[in-house]
Amino acid sequence: MSTPESAHQCVSEQRLRDDISRTAEFGAIETDRGHGRTVLTGTEANRKAREYFVDRLEAAGLDVRVDAVGNIAGRWVPEGADSTASPVACGSHLDSVPEGGIFDGVLGVYSGLEAVRALQRVDADLDRPIDVVCFTEEEGARFSNGVLGSSVASGRQTVEDALAREDTDGVTVEMALSDIGFRGSGRLDASTWDSWLELHVEQGERLQDANAAVGIVSAITGTVRCAVGIEGEANHSGSTTMAERTDALTAASELVLEVEHATEAVVADHGDTVVGTVGKLDVSPNAINVVPGRVELGIDIRDVRYESMERIIDRLTERLAQLETERGVETTFERPYDIAPSEMSERCTSGLERAAETVGVPSLSLHSGAGHDTMHVASVTDTGMLFAPSHGGFSHSPREWTDWSSCATATQVLATGLADLAGD
Amino acid sequence: MSTPESAHQCVSEQRLRDDISRTAEFGAIETDRGHGRTVLTGTEANRKAREYFVDRLEAAGLDVRVDAVGNIAGRWVPEGADSTASPVACGSHLDSVPEGGIFDGVLGVYSGLEAVRALQRVDADLDRPIDVVCFTEEEGARFSNGVLGSSVASGRQTVEDALAREDTDGVTVEMALSDIGFRGSGRLDASTWDSWLELHVEQGERLQDANAAVGIVSAITGTVRCAVGIEGEANHSGSTTMAERTDALTAASELVLEVEHATEAVVADHGDTVVGTVGKLDVSPNAINVVPGRVELGIDIRDVRYESMERIIDRLTERLAQLETERGVETTFERPYDIAPSEMSERCTSGLERAAETVGVPSLSLHSGAGHDTMHVASVTDTGMLFAPSHGGFSHSPREWTDWSSCATATQVLATGLADLAGD
Repeated sequence: MSTPESAHQCVSEQRLRDDISRTAEFGAIETDRGHGRTVLTGTEANRKAREYFVDRLEAAGLDVRVDAVGNIAGRWVPEGADSTASPVACGSHLDSVPEGGIFDGVLGVYSGLEAVRALQRVDADLDRPIDVVCFTEEEGARFSNGVLGSSVASGRQTVEDALAREDTDGVTVEMALSDIGFRGSGRLDASTWDSWLELHVEQGERLQDANAAVGIVSAITGTVRCAVGIEGEANHSGSTTMAERTDALTAASELVLEVEHATEAVVADHGDTVVGTVGKLDVSPNAINVVPGRVELGIDIRDVRYESMERIIDRLTERLAQLETERGVETTFERPYDIAPSEMSERCTSGLERAAETVGVPSLSLHSGAGHDTMHVASVTDTGMLFAPSHGGFSHSPREWTDWSSCATATQVLATGLADLAGD
Repeated sequence: MSTPESAHQCVSEQRLRDDISRTAEFGAIETDRGHGRTVLTGTEANRKAREYFVDRLEAAGLDVRVDAVGNIAGRWVPEGADSTASPVACGSHLDSVPEGGIFDGVLGVYSGLEAVRALQRVDADLDRPIDVVCFTEEEGARFSNGVLGSSVASGRQTVEDALAREDTDGVTVEMALSDIGFRGSGRLDASTWDSWLELHVEQGERLQDANAAVGIVSAITGTVRCAVGIEGEANHSGSTTMAERTDALTAASELVLEVEHATEAVVADHGDTVVGTVGKLDVSPNAINVVPGRVELGIDIRDVRYESMERIIDRLTERLAQLETERGVETTFERPYDIAPSEMSERCTSGLERAAETVGVPSLSLHSGAGHDTMHVASVTDTGMLFAPSHGGFSHSPREWTDWSSCATATQVLATGLADLAGD
């Protein structure tokens, strides 16, 4: 046995790179902006990514379980550790947005496994088991608003409700997971974990700008998502005069610009932690010679201050009321997803700071503008998050890139942090 | 033999209603706004609508041919007529927009057949054959910008070019027509017709407002369609600050509103013959947690004054240049469809006016804001167009409705007008 502090020296950049590169082949897309991937929950690409992960966990001697909603966990009980002690867990997700990048989620999963392999190599003297976890449907690109698996693992949603969720074709999570052989049993319970660490790509440019090797997350912004429906009247584009029409798309365009204006007003007052986006907009019937009869919008608002998010939403609902009066459209407004900002645990944050010092790399304290499974886990146990630098800040895009050496360095910090938490 | 003038008394509202109602079953959709239909070219619904039409033509003793692009024509040679004389033709189309109405196109096809049946009944003394025609892909909802079959019949597009057109899945017109058994041979040649009449639903409210039974079209507006691409940068909606993003959808929203503003400026100057519509807008990747990277817009501009259409297009291209500068997006602008306004022939128009007098119903002279196959036919022979009143002006929607008695009255005028042209 050796001191766990030396584990970081055994992190293999090559092994980590092999795992991430191999995973990047599943659902791969080649674009002129780079190599990307589309890996929606329950698809063939997702099955391959999961099967490869299970193979790698087993190859490292971890004990694998798959829960009822497809969450995967591999457990390593270090020699001399108490196998009944609450484990330290780490990980992330393997699904992606449509045309996403190859690091988002995948780095978190395989850095966890590589950290375990490094700790095994040095035969680290640890007290607690370590779990390496892949959560289901983090991105929410097929069935949900995202972070589905971790919402079940943290008890915020029941297994039954999660399994019953449907995609736009009426396929349920249960059917999709069964199809790919990842409808397991039981429920991964994050409240039984001593603590949780997640390494993720930053998806921003702050580390790059500060020349920091890793970011240590202080808080994750809250996220509110709104589903807006705007109903006009579909009609012939040639024979319906401008005065006669009730065009759902011109009304929707005003709302898109209002999201931008309202968010920028908050930026002016409180700085740029706040963001507001209309990422999804569907026109119906969407034919060039028909005045749009209906538009559905998906709006995403985030900030570390909940009251700023409320301020933007108030402006949007006021604008919708105005559009009803001025343009004669009917509107609906729902708020299906509402997560408050969450603080990381001091115990985990200070552990990661010590780990960066041990590895000897500069770190930066920052907030996460992106939501992560860690948000849910934070409601039931101590959590910490670590960021690796993203080139140009690109993410959810084939342009997403993190240097292999940066991936390895962040994994060294993770391994050291895990050892810190799993030790005495 | 009897005078053709009495033919209108033999028009059967029931027969016409049966044919339109039966056709409404193919591709039928039931909505809370009414009974609609989705009949895209080369689909199963389109096959059924075509087969039923061929059956009905043959049942009335017409000689049916199907040309290389699927245009269908049934010829009736009245007893005593010169079978080699250039025929008088009439008809419309059987395809629909997605979620369209049951009268658009269908009334024109079956009123033509019913007019022939009425003329047969009175054993009308006519000199010329009468052709009843269904053109392929008038709406352009699957393969084209519309009026595809008539563009071939009028020599504005070759058979080869039309057959090579592809839908979004890469299926060609040729493959789709072969699949449904309507890839015929030869080319229906509209320049061989003595004249052409098309009855269509108005798709506006002018007849209703004027209490007129039929509208006699003076001119059809020109149509310019523009395809605009706006390229931003897809990025994570949570971790990309407002200042860092290049959002294709906020830029596109400004353009949508510019189409409306620029068109309304022309309305203020020249009245409401001009319309401008963004009917189609596609966001990519269209996920709630991704800043939109690309938007494609389909814009439709129409007027009886070509220079007004140019004025709107100039404003749009200026705005796109502004958006490039102000928002950092890249834009593309194409103009794949450009048809000048077309006047109807005095000979046909006055024949229809006399026909309305013979039938004894009030008519109104008006322009057509909608494009029709008649636009193309007008470039090679004399043409006239007749409108039947649309309830509330709704069209391209399941709310489209024309009373059965109004359909029959307009068919009486059509039958009388055809007899007028096919007589001495």
